[in-house]
This record gives sequence, structure tokens and C-alpha cells, in this order.
Amino acid sequence: MIKLGNLKEHIGKEVEVQAFVDNVRNIKWVQFIVLRDLTGKVQVTIEKSLEENKEMVELVNELTIDSTVKIKGKLIENENVKLNGMEIIPTSIEVTSKCLGELPFNYNNLEGVNLDTRLDHRFIDLRNEKNGLIFKVQSTLIRYMREYLYNNNFTEIHTPKMIGAASESGSEVFEVKYFDRKAYLAQSPQFYKQMAMAAGMERIFEVAPCFRAENSNTNRHATEFTSFDLEFSYIDSFEDVMNLEAEMLAYGLEHLKNEMGEKIKEVFGVDIVVPTLPFPKMALRDVYTEIEERYGYKVDESEKTDLTTEAERLVGRLAKEKYNHEFMFITDYPADKRAFYHMRNEEGVLQGYDLIWRGVEITSGAQREHRYEEICKNAASKGLGEDVKFYLDFFKYGCPPHGGFAIGVDRLTMLLLNVPSVKESQFLFRGPNRLNP
Amino acid sequence: MIKLGNLKEHIGKEVEVQAFVDNVRNIKWVQFIVLRDLTGKVQVTIEKSLEENKEMVELVNELTIDSTVKIKGKLIENENVKLNGMEIIPTSIEVTSKCLGELPFNYNNLEGVNLDTRLDHRFIDLRNEKNGLIFKVQSTLIRYMREYLYNNNFTEIHTPKMIGAASESGSEVFEVKYFDRKAYLAQSPQFYKQMAMAAGMERIFEVAPCFRAENSNTNRHATEFTSFDLEFSYIDSFEDVMNLEAEMLAYGLEHLKNEMGEKIKEVFGVDIVVPTLPFPKMALRDVYTEIEERYGYKVDESEKTDLTTEAERLVGRLAKEKYNHEFMFITDYPADKRAFYHMRNEEGVLQGYDLIWRGVEITSGAQREHRYEEICKNAASKGLGEDVKFYLDFFKYGCPPHGGFAIGVDRLTMLLLNVPSVKESQFLFRGPNRLNP
Repeated sequence: MIKLGNLKEHIGKEVEVQAFVDNVRNIKWVQFIVLRDLTGKVQVTIEKSLEENKEMVELVNELTIDSTVKIKGKLIENENVKLNGMEIIPTSIEVTSKCLGELPFNYNNLEGVNLDTRLDHRFIDLRNEKNGLIFKVQSTLIRYMREYLYNNNFTEIHTPKMIGAASESGSEVFEVKYFDRKAYLAQSPQFYKQMAMAAGMERIFEVAPCFRAENSNTNRHATEFTSFDLEFSYIDSFEDVMNLEAEMLAYGLEHLKNEMGEKIKEVFGVDIVVPTLPFPKMALRDVYTEIEERYGYKVDESEKTDLTTEAERLVGRLAKEKYNHEFMFITDYPADKRAFYHMRNEEGVLQGYDLIWRGVEITSGAQREHRYEEICKNAASKGLGEDVKFYLDFFKYGCPPHGGFAIGVDRLTMLLLNVPSVKESQFLFRGPNRLNP
Repeated sequence: MIKLGNLKEHIGKEVEVQAFVDNVRNIKWVQFIVLRDLTGKVQVTIEKSLEENKEMVELVNELTIDSTVKIKGKLIENENVKLNGMEIIPTSIEVTSKCLGELPFNYNNLEGVNLDTRLDHRFIDLRNEKNGLIFKVQSTLIRYMREYLYNNNFTEIHTPKMIGAASESGSEVFEVKYFDRKAYLAQSPQFYKQMAMAAGMERIFEVAPCFRAENSNTNRHATEFTSFDLEFSYIDSFEDVMNLEAEMLAYGLEHLKNEMGEKIKEVFGVDIVVPTLPFPKMALRDVYTEIEERYGYKVDESEKTDLTTEAERLVGRLAKEKYNHEFMFITDYPADKRAFYHMRNEEGVLQGYDLIWRGVEITSGAQREHRYEEICKNAASKGLGEDVKFYLDFFKYGCPPHGGFAIGVDRLTMLLLNVPSVKESQFLFRGPNRLNP
């Protein structure tokens, strides 16, 4: 079967195409159908007066937009046809599926259509060129991020999502009825990524769903989302983790730009910028000093243990203005505000970082604590006990120094294409009030 | 940092390596450490009598096997060293993590170790070369199966695992407490793959967890497993689906063989066979006739609506003996025994298939019913109502003819490497009695 985008190579020949009906015009002497697939459009022209077209003419009289058809015919050049200067003169038309009613909304013009209505009929919403293309872009970026990792000896693993204990932070975990007991949905593969390190697997990654029972409604939170997670061994410090992440993102964005840059520019009006290496980085306290000096942004000392949403935004601006860069690593977070499995150095400084892209956090990364006594101490200081014992055991029998990070794929996609919300950068959004379709 | 497998290029030079301690030998005048990483092993040799080695000697006196170390030193050629004819003469040894006690079992010799003990300590079990390698092989095969799909214009999607209705088959679904209501864990992405077809996404795939609340304990069932799922539009029949699956598997296996064939032969004793195209196929009823004639296998007519486990095994034998092939497609299943979304032709014959590899079913595939009236009829005939209404709606506004299949990744891996059970071909097995670690 020939894709519409490749028809040019077949001018003068018999062709068979399958596509959606994008439009039908029925005028006095002639009928026009415009067909659409993901690669392009083509006009089909039927002379009404010809005896052999009689059946087709009747069929096209009943043909509804958004039906799908299979059409055979001759593809001819015709400079009078505005659409690519060619048309198919059909010898047969088969309606392979009928659009049976009026669509709930016009997917070619979503302005003013309520987002919930769109999400209720996501299968219609995704017919919009822009909305559908989001996922081609996402797939392509992830493809090349994975490729970078394969090239660097990473192994993809699949960790379980049903877990026996609500370990990382009990408050925001979904509970599952598991036969006669309870299971929980994994908030992240963190413990299992680290298990792979203790197992000597050295370099692993996973792209998989994570689940968080947060009852929050922002443009960047979802109860289920796709996480791009990795972990690797024998690092010297968390600098190794930052460097690998920067290289992976640069590799992914470069290949994405080569493959889809023009299309993305055309449809989203967005330039894919391939970031230079290394990415700039700043300590958290220096960020607050500098955004106060430059932009007059003041917050109370008590808030300076993390970036506020506004501070994140200003970090995006600072990265641009100071480093001409879209990315910035933020380091030196206070250790007591971060997860117990992040390593602290001898001065108690957290060996981890956040990565800000275009003013939004996309990653937390760190060297992990791999020494048994230390990780036990850290867990105890957070009041974690029996539930994490299985995890602490991973470090009893030797475990290489290691680190890693996680990137939220939906959020990455949102920022990449300037989509307003993860509700639109997820194939099917899940939030406290949305479990359907 | 240099991997041990690449040391040869560095003979005569100063090197820095990080690895697990595979062995320590402490004899009168000298200490030997054998280091191990995923790429190989190397000997480290410490002359006890040298004054500058004093601290190192003390450290090695305390060094336990399975600790991890960072070692700097000079790599020299020495034909007396059995292990690759070289050794590192260290200038510094840093113990990066200590193995603090006796391991629960010897991972180099798992014979006689209870499988549950191994799974309880999976992070130890995976240090076994063979067990760890399973996942490198799995990752490599999946990498190339994906590559085939990217090359054929497929888009990877991520469908939600928490769903609003227990739709496909209510009896075997896990229930989730979702704020003040109930959600369910997806048994497969089937409905959402098809939604993508209705959305005009044309060709999509997903590699993701599926969940089945089956209380069964066989060597090939798990309550959570990784499914390689795809769906594509504008097919002419389910033959297109079978052909694509065969091509994808052949592509994946060919690249796997090129990259890891020798290692797989060495460690698992298994030959990767790149299958010839097309794969042989037989109708279900003909299979039963032929395995009765050839092998004397008789079953009651009532059982011939599907392959029995023994019949599957004999199909593997038949494929080998009749077609010199490891794969066989089985077609013409009775429509009433299969899912309602599989298409039937005008004679009521199911437009779907199973794929048997080495005597075990690895796939069900089909052309799907994409016509609204027909799919509604099929659903009604199975007594499905309100729960699938959202799904039936996908077909109301035009939907291209399409088909697809799913492959169980853990089962595929099990068969590929002749692993006895999915309990060992899953990174962490999940069954009715196993939720940990």
C-alpha cells in the first residue's frame, strides 16, 4: 500500500490507497474527495457523467467525512489541482468504515472546545494534526535517548509495578487488592534500579509507568505518568550522573532535530535547540542570590531549601541570559529535604541535583548511598523501618558506588513542544478526577 | 574508567578499575585478588614484602569476596598468570563497599538452592553470570524488535494502566483504591491500542506491564508481566499481521544472533536460529488431524476448539519435522472461543491466529473488528454492556481496518534461552504468593 506522502513517485501509474476522508465536495459535474493519512493528502476526482462511474457517484453521494476508504485508480498529474498538482481518477472505491454521526467537536479547530470534552473523546482529539504529532515526537526523542544508552552498554529492565510495601513515602501510594492481602503501586522503580546495581548489572534503564496518589490538579502532575529512569555503577561522584544525563539529552535532541525539526517548527512553531555540553550548573543558594540581584525575586529564608515554582521559572531565564542555555543543573540542596537514599558527603552536602529545562524541573538525580551502615542510618533518621528492610539488605553484601536519575516523559514532552499541560502531552491523562476513557 | 574486558589495550600502562572482588588468595609472599565486572576478570598481585605495600596488605587481609573496590596500578603482561596472561600491580586500593557477611547461597553454583530462596535474594541470584545475562539478551532482542518497528514508521505510545472499568474480562482483574472510587489494573492495552487506530495514529506499539489476577501457578504465568503490543491500520487481512510479526521476529533474532549469538551459545548452550520467511501456518483442525496421524495424539472433539498444552508441544515438533522451522502460525480458531474484538469473516471464521514457538504459544494476533455495528453485535453476544461502551464509541466516527498482536516478553525470553520458568526470566517475578522483594 502506498502512503499519500509518497504518491509523487507513482504519477502515471495505477495506485491503491487507504485513508480517512478529509473532505467531500459534490458539484454539478464532478465529485472531489480529499483523502488524508499521516503522511499527506490527495484529491480523488470522479466525473459524474461517465457511465462506468455510476456506482461510485452514488457511493460518494452518501460518503461522510471521517469515514475510511480504500481506493484504486490512476494517479495523474494535473496542474489545476491545488493540492500537490495531482489527482487520483478512481476505478473503485470501497468504504472500509463509516463515520456514523456528527463529531462531538471539530478537531481541526479546537479553540473554545473544553479540555474535558476533548479528553472525553480523546480518539477524536488526537485526529488533530498537532495533537497526534506530539506522540510521534515523543516516540522519536525516547528512541534516541534509548539509543544513546544502548551505545553506552545500558540494559533495559522491567521492574514490577505491584509491590509488597508502600515503601518510598506511604502517604501517596495507591493500594491494590492482591488476592487476600494488599499490594501497592510503585511510585518509582528507585529501589529496584538500585537492586540491579547490587546484582552487578552495572548500567540499567527503564521506561515505564509510575503511580502517585497525589490529589493535586496542576498542569504538570498526573496520578500515572511515564518515567524514564536509569542507574549506573562505578561512578566517582554525582558529576558523572549529570554528565551522562546532559550527553543523553543532547544526543536525543540532536537526532530528533535532524529527523523532525522542520516538521516541529512548522506545526508547533518551536525550534529544537541542541544543547551544548557541559550544561551550566549552580548551587541552590547562589541561584537565590543571583535571581534576587538580577530580577528582584525575594523569598523568605525558610523557602530556600528548594526552588519555588517562580524560582524555577527564573532559573530558566537566568540560564538563557547568563549562559545562553536552555538547561541548568541545580546542586547543593539541603540533605534533610531529600530522599534518604541520596548520598551526602562528609560535610553533609547532598550529592544530588535537579535539572531545570525552560524554567521547569524535569529531573532529580544523585549519587546514591551504597554503604550499608550509612544507608541504614539515613533510613532511620527518616523514621523508616521494617518496610524498607528488604531494600537495605541490597547493600549488605557489597554494592558498587552508583547513581542515576529519572525524567518525566510527559513533562519533557510538554516542555519540548510548548504544550500547555501534561493533560495534553499524555496519550491518556490520569488525574484525581479522570480515569476515563 | 576501563572495563576489565578492554584491559588488553592498556598493557604497560597505569590503569584505574572498579569491580567486584571475585576472589582473594593470601599466600606466604603474595596476595592475589581476582576482580570481576560484566566484561571480564583480572588478577591483582600484591608483593607482601615490599614496604610501600604495607597498608594495602593489611587492607587485603580484611578484604571479603563480593566487596567492591577501586584499584589504581600498572597493568603488566605476565605469561605465568593463567587469567588472560596479565596482572595489575596496584599502587592504591580503595574498598568502595564491604560485603559484610556470608552470602545466603553461592551464586556460582545454584544447583540445589531452592528457587524461593533465590527469588527472596534476587539481588544475589542475579550475580550468577547466566541469570544476569538473561536480561542483557532480553534487552538486546527488544531493542531490535523496536528498531524494526521504528524503521517501519511505528510510534511508541504509553497507555494508562489504571482504568475506570474492568472491561476485558471482569473476573481476573486487580482492583485499586482510587481516592473515593475504584480503578482497575489493565490486563492489556488492547482497547487503547485500538483507540490509537481510531485516532488515525496508523501504527503504534507499546512495551509495558500488564496485570492479571489469575490464581494459577505454572511455569509460564505471572500476575504481572511485560507485554510487547502493537497495532496497525490499513491492513487487508490478518495475513498482514502475521507477516509483520514474522518479519519483526526474524529481524530481532538476526540482530541478536549477530551481537550476542556466541555468548549465548557459550553460557546457555543455545543456538539462536534466525527463522526463514514466511513462517509455516496451519489451520487448527488440520493440526489435530496431523498430530493424531503422526504422533498418535488423540483428544476429544470438545477439546479441539483450542490447542491443549500437549498439542502446543506437538506443534513445535511438527513445525520442526515438517517445515524445519521453530515457529508455526495456527489459524481458523472457532470464533466463539475468542475475544469479541477479533474479526470474523462472512462465514464466521475467526480472522486471527496464535503463534507457537518451540512448542509454546507466544502470541495471539488478529484483524480486529473495526465496523461499529459489527463490534456492537460481537460485544452484545458476549454479554458485554455499559463497561465497554467507551470502547465501542471508538468505532462510531470512522476507524481504519486494523490488526495487531501481543507477545509476552518474559515468556519469549524463557523460550529463547531455555530458562525453565518465567520466574527466572522476569527481573522480579510476581505470582499469587510472591510480591517481594
